Amino acid sequence: MIMRHPLIMTPGPTQVHEEVRRAMSIEPTNPDLDENFFEFYKNTCNKIKRLLNTNNDVLILDGEGILGLEAACASLIEPGDRVLCIDNGIFGNGFGDFAKMYGGNVVYFKSDYKKSIDIKELEEFLKEDSDFKVATLVHCETPAGIVNPVDEICPLLKKYGIVSIIDSVSAIGGELVKVDEWNMDIVLGGSQKCLSAPPGLTFLSISDDAWNIISNRKIPIAGFYCNIGVWKNWYEDKWFPYTQPISDIYALDCAIDRLLSKNDYVYRHKKIANAVRMAIVNSGLSLYPLEGFSNTVTTILVPEGVSYRNIYNDMLKDHNIMIAGAFDYLKDKVLRIGHMGENCYEEKLYITLKALDSTLRKYNIKLKGEIHKYFIDEI
Amino acid sequence: MIMRHPLIMTPGPTQVHEEVRRAMSIEPTNPDLDENFFEFYKNTCNKIKRLLNTNNDVLILDGEGILGLEAACASLIEPGDRVLCIDNGIFGNGFGDFAKMYGGNVVYFKSDYKKSIDIKELEEFLKEDSDFKVATLVHCETPAGIVNPVDEICPLLKKYGIVSIIDSVSAIGGELVKVDEWNMDIVLGGSQKCLSAPPGLTFLSISDDAWNIISNRKIPIAGFYCNIGVWKNWYEDKWFPYTQPISDIYALDCAIDRLLSKNDYVYRHKKIANAVRMAIVNSGLSLYPLEGFSNTVTTILVPEGVSYRNIYNDMLKDHNIMIAGAFDYLKDKVLRIGHMGENCYEEKLYITLKALDSTLRKYNIKLKGEIHKYFIDEI
Amino acid sequence: MIMRHPLIMTPGPTQVHEEVRRAMSIEPTNPDLDENFFEFYKNTCNKIKRLLNTNNDVLILDGEGILGLEAACASLIEPGDRVLCIDNGIFGNGFGDFAKMYGGNVVYFKSDYKKSIDIKELEEFLKEDSDFKVATLVHCETPAGIVNPVDEICPLLKKYGIVSIIDSVSAIGGELVKVDEWNMDIVLGGSQKCLSAPPGLTFLSISDDAWNIISNRKIPIAGFYCNIGVWKNWYEDKWFPYTQPISDIYALDCAIDRLLSKNDYVYRHKKIANAVRMAIVNSGLSLYPLEGFSNTVTTILVPEGVSYRNIYNDMLKDHNIMIAGAFDYLKDKVLRIGHMGENCYEEKLYITLKALDSTLRKYNIKLKGEIHKYFIDEI
Amino acid sequence: MIMRHPLIMTPGPTQVHEEVRRAMSIEPTNPDLDENFFEFYKNTCNKIKRLLNTNNDVLILDGEGILGLEAACASLIEPGDRVLCIDNGIFGNGFGDFAKMYGGNVVYFKSDYKKSIDIKELEEFLKEDSDFKVATLVHCETPAGIVNPVDEICPLLKKYGIVSIIDSVSAIGGELVKVDEWNMDIVLGGSQKCLSAPPGLTFLSISDDAWNIISNRKIPIAGFYCNIGVWKNWYEDKWFPYTQPISDIYALDCAIDRLLSKNDYVYRHKKIANAVRMAIVNSGLSLYPLEGFSNTVTTILVPEGVSYRNIYNDMLKDHNIMIAGAFDYLKDKVLRIGHMGENCYEEKLYITLKALDSTLRKYNIKLKGEIHKYFIDEI
Repeated sequence: MIMRHPLIMTPGPTQVHEEVRRAMSIEPTNPDLDENFFEFYKNTCNKIKRLLNTNNDVLILDGEGILGLEAACASLIEPGDRVLCIDNGIFGNGFGDFAKMYGGNVVYFKSDYKKSIDIKELEEFLKEDSDFKVATLVHCETPAGIVNPVDEICPLLKKYGIVSIIDSVSAIGGELVKVDEWNMDIVLGGSQKCLSAPPGLTFLSISDDAWNIISNRKIPIAGFYCNIGVWKNWYEDKWFPYTQPISDIYALDCAIDRLLSKNDYVYRHKKIANAVRMAIVNSGLSLYPLEGFSNTVTTILVPEGVSYRNIYNDMLKDHNIMIAGAFDYLKDKVLRIGHMGENCYEEKLYITLKALDSTLRKYNIKLKGEIHKYFIDEI
Repeated sequence: MIMRHPLIMTPGPTQVHEEVRRAMSIEPTNPDLDENFFEFYKNTCNKIKRLLNTNNDVLILDGEGILGLEAACASLIEPGDRVLCIDNGIFGNGFGDFAKMYGGNVVYFKSDYKKSIDIKELEEFLKEDSDFKVATLVHCETPAGIVNPVDEICPLLKKYGIVSIIDSVSAIGGELVKVDEWNMDIVLGGSQKCLSAPPGLTFLSISDDAWNIISNRKIPIAGFYCNIGVWKNWYEDKWFPYTQPISDIYALDCAIDRLLSKNDYVYRHKKIANAVRMAIVNSGLSLYPLEGFSNTVTTILVPEGVSYRNIYNDMLKDHNIMIAGAFDYLKDKVLRIGHMGENCYEEKLYITLKALDSTLRKYNIKLKGEIHKYFIDEI
Repeated sequence: MIMRHPLIMTPGPTQVHEEVRRAMSIEPTNPDLDENFFEFYKNTCNKIKRLLNTNNDVLILDGEGILGLEAACASLIEPGDRVLCIDNGIFGNGFGDFAKMYGGNVVYFKSDYKKSIDIKELEEFLKEDSDFKVATLVHCETPAGIVNPVDEICPLLKKYGIVSIIDSVSAIGGELVKVDEWNMDIVLGGSQKCLSAPPGLTFLSISDDAWNIISNRKIPIAGFYCNIGVWKNWYEDKWFPYTQPISDIYALDCAIDRLLSKNDYVYRHKKIANAVRMAIVNSGLSLYPLEGFSNTVTTILVPEGVSYRNIYNDMLKDHNIMIAGAFDYLKDKVLRIGHMGENCYEEKLYITLKALDSTLRKYNIKLKGEIHKYFIDEI
Repeated sequence: MIMRHPLIMTPGPTQVHEEVRRAMSIEPTNPDLDENFFEFYKNTCNKIKRLLNTNNDVLILDGEGILGLEAACASLIEPGDRVLCIDNGIFGNGFGDFAKMYGGNVVYFKSDYKKSIDIKELEEFLKEDSDFKVATLVHCETPAGIVNPVDEICPLLKKYGIVSIIDSVSAIGGELVKVDEWNMDIVLGGSQKCLSAPPGLTFLSISDDAWNIISNRKIPIAGFYCNIGVWKNWYEDKWFPYTQPISDIYALDCAIDRLLSKNDYVYRHKKIANAVRMAIVNSGLSLYPLEGFSNTVTTILVPEGVSYRNIYNDMLKDHNIMIAGAFDYLKDKVLRIGHMGENCYEEKLYITLKALDSTLRKYNIKLKGEIHKYFIDEI
């Protein structure tokens, strides 16, 4: 059974560059025994450190991004710990569930789901109640296309002695991330978003404050696969908790090389994202967020007169381009275009927006002008 | 940084056939959205069913084999549940730790670590105490090279109403596995052993009895990534709990195709394993197990007069062949040769045993004859 | 040493789809012995027949397009044979040199180098002198970007009993080719143009009239590698004149599959080519040809005030896009953009023309408007 | 249509290492324009120089080995030139046909087809008649498995002022070649033999004496594709006579890297070849040559009581190993096992000879002992 190959313009797994794919097929070794592989893994972690602007430890775990998120919660949170869940979207809210799963006493700082977190409101909140061990935050709310000001939030949390767990899965590689400067404690990412490696891996940077919590727990971490603690001395001991997914790590390593070789990747994401948004707005369509627009994904309200399912199907069938919708309260309300990593190139957005324009016109949606032309006017 | 490429004859990740590696680099899609991918995933699960001789549900999880093991424990065991840990080796004993981690009240059926489980002794034990919800068992004790009689143990457990979790990671694809005929409840495997796909995936077959336990828990499963329950209706709902590792699944699919295309793979493993053992014994070396020899890995006592580390290093340096030692109480006591999947071919064992022969002679180890010649006399 | 990877928009080797590249790496066999390979080769030839709309024999030769051209001349032309060289460009004229090399008494039908062949003028010419054994013609004059009306010329030649050798290297896969309907005797192509396989192979269709000439020569063909005759019974005899380049043939086979799976490839080339030309003209630049525009390559006069070398270098350096110039009398006078096969997609031309626009503006070339916008207005 | 993948143990295209295959799929460029590619091509030529121990120019041509042979003849030989064809086998004899094709007045030095050339007899011959412009010689007579003493013959020819063309296609990479020390004028090789790259390329080293002949011809070279002369200044002019087969050259480059990284390749071929021969002889079978055994291919007389076709078919069907026969006067008389490049490893010959042993016993061929056991006794 062979897969069709549309242009994948979803805010999820993106096109994977063939160099990255070729890297996957490097002759495998036995990662449990091969000293070279320990160095290779460490070297890949070091590249992630550069990407995150940090000297903190970095680990790559064999699992999807959600594993990184759960591992952070499982490792930091003990039953009864007060956890602040900073919540302005589906993913932010769901973070709280993971904290609860591991016994966290979760307090929600709930904010407008159409905006990024207001740092002033958060500050007011913390003045009233800041007795939290841990705070959870989603850097980029992928379903809504909203990015949160982690550069302001994390230092604020640190000021209050709160250890932060930041889900930067769909931000790393597209938005600037300065872990050390911004005092981010645990930052987690995935292989399949802006890095454009195949899905399968998650990685985390872990600050000393986070390690301290892990090392000084009262009760042991409730699990092994989600246990960051077992990794503490992997390099010194030349020991991995389980056999490492070498092919996926080769691919990740190559993908980071590609990204780091292009100094302008943050600028590129910003420029493309801005032009996409301007094209949407100028043509008379509406963005879902009111402010705090993500540079890696754009979320558009499905216009009256057409359904999301029709747009998705027609773009796939007529134009061989795959875009996404969303889920939960956004189901059928929005359509999303990813412009992450390998997808974040002018010609790909041009052809995607042209296909969107053509699809909407098929349903007699009124547009002020051609979406793709607004795009190229802005870019 | 480029990896060296020795011949990997360890009982871990084995040589990966290049067809399998090429399969990894199939153009990716968005597995969360692409209907074709849901079918592809299901189809791969169906191939695993054929491999396991079962009609039970099969799931592929994004993680190493230990994830499958932990997920089974996490999903079946509730705090206070009595769990029987059938223990005749390092892995079997460690299984109990996972059961405890999720609250299991673990009772060990401990047996000689140099032999496979004696079904009669187990039967005697169960006559005295059979009030267990779950039993754990390792099919092939990889560190010791011992295979357990799952064809006898699982029906016996079922007779007593005990749901079995069987770690068949290093057995599937090398030893016969008849899940339905033998009443195996949860059987778990990994991509990187006899299937010879790259490490990164685990898979499980789940019986109705196991599903019933999952569905009728008193308290929710303590975690998400290790939670089998969330998968219950993935196909009907066209929903995955997380973005699937498409490349790894493509490779696994291809690897199973290769294995299934060779009807004689069980026979081949048996024949090779037997010849390896005879070569070891006839040349005057000693096997670690007294009986219950695995067909996928052979464990040899390090002879007096040489250290494991020397043998490992010299075989790698002089012959470019990587073999393994073991750990825990077996550390430095044994050396292990894997003959799993792509490694399980006469010419590979010939060259490996010849290298072993040459290495041992370098250290003046007395041998009755040449190891590789005994091998080819037997094969 | 690693190659840089610009976007290759030259009228030569184009981007190669990774499926095609993967096809190259299929496990090789011994093509001299393997019966399956004889079938594979034959099957690939059959696909070429479908592409050329012919029942004539098709051969694939191990060499670049020029080998096909030379082989046709070497096999058909004997010393003293009168050969009509239909000449409206560098390649058409050079064809005469190959005819002379093999002893041809060459008469040139010379025509305006900025236009396609005028069928009426050719007819007038033939009324005066039609005593030619063979005529040579270039289907698409790649250096000038001119396509000749082979649908009119070949039937006319056949009326006069002249056997035609048509170099369709840069036309096949982009322009319609109907070998049987148009009475084309030998038509030759290459792997690396519109088929978008890697360079390395040439192929020819050979009519019965052409075979008759080959079979009834007075003196033997002057060479072996350029000798079509030795191939006559390759399939019946299960014999190749030399070991076949299996990897290249796998890739060619896959590339043709890709092309044939898209019924609209002629239409696509026509539409893209037209929009490119309109963009050039509307922006105030000049095309080199006056008429007879090729659908696979567009040739643009280098505007005053900038050199070809500057444009080439800047597009490569600033935009990572490689375009071409030409040679001979066109050297430094024109720049060429290929829109062949994998290059012939709207988004690639969009980004290429945008880069051209930007580059010309850097040199203060006056343009009536933005080149890429004219392009998207037309497409 | 997918190819079956037997173990290819023929003296032709051998197994290709997957690193080499991966190298083929490096992103292509436009080799006519890309300055980097000119350097890459030159660099690959330099590696060939190291392999041939020469400072002579080296060229890689887009075609099979026979193209190199024909190009050498076409470029050096003018009508009427006296050519000495040193002939002790099918290939050596056929060389004369190519010389004649280009007008050579060919004189044969014919020698026993079961032995390598006797240098003394050749010296006697030359004392009588040495007025030759060119001599042709096959280094390794692949059909017969005989290697000729080029280290003695070429200096002798040079002493008499005769320019040598040596077909080393199945020797380079397996036998020592010292072009400069031994005064070899033109030495030609192919990609698909001991270098174990895919078939498709030929290469030549060209001495100053050879270049002088090419530069001082009275009449031009009769052809373009076989014309070495057009390449004279390719690097200075940054001009190739035709678009280069980049993928094949990438693969060749990688294959030479692999070979050069193993300093012992000549020794390895010698050791394996010797053990194969001893195994054949000791088991009671007969080698075809009486002396002058090649280190890259072994030619065995088909024993009475079985046909070549049966052996070939059974080895392929029952053991999935492809061996070769020969042709011409050797058809059905011999079977050949290649031990070239990637095939030249102990474990591959072991399994091949075991399969041969098993096949012959099926036909009740009497053997003094097991062929593969004699092999491992010798190795």
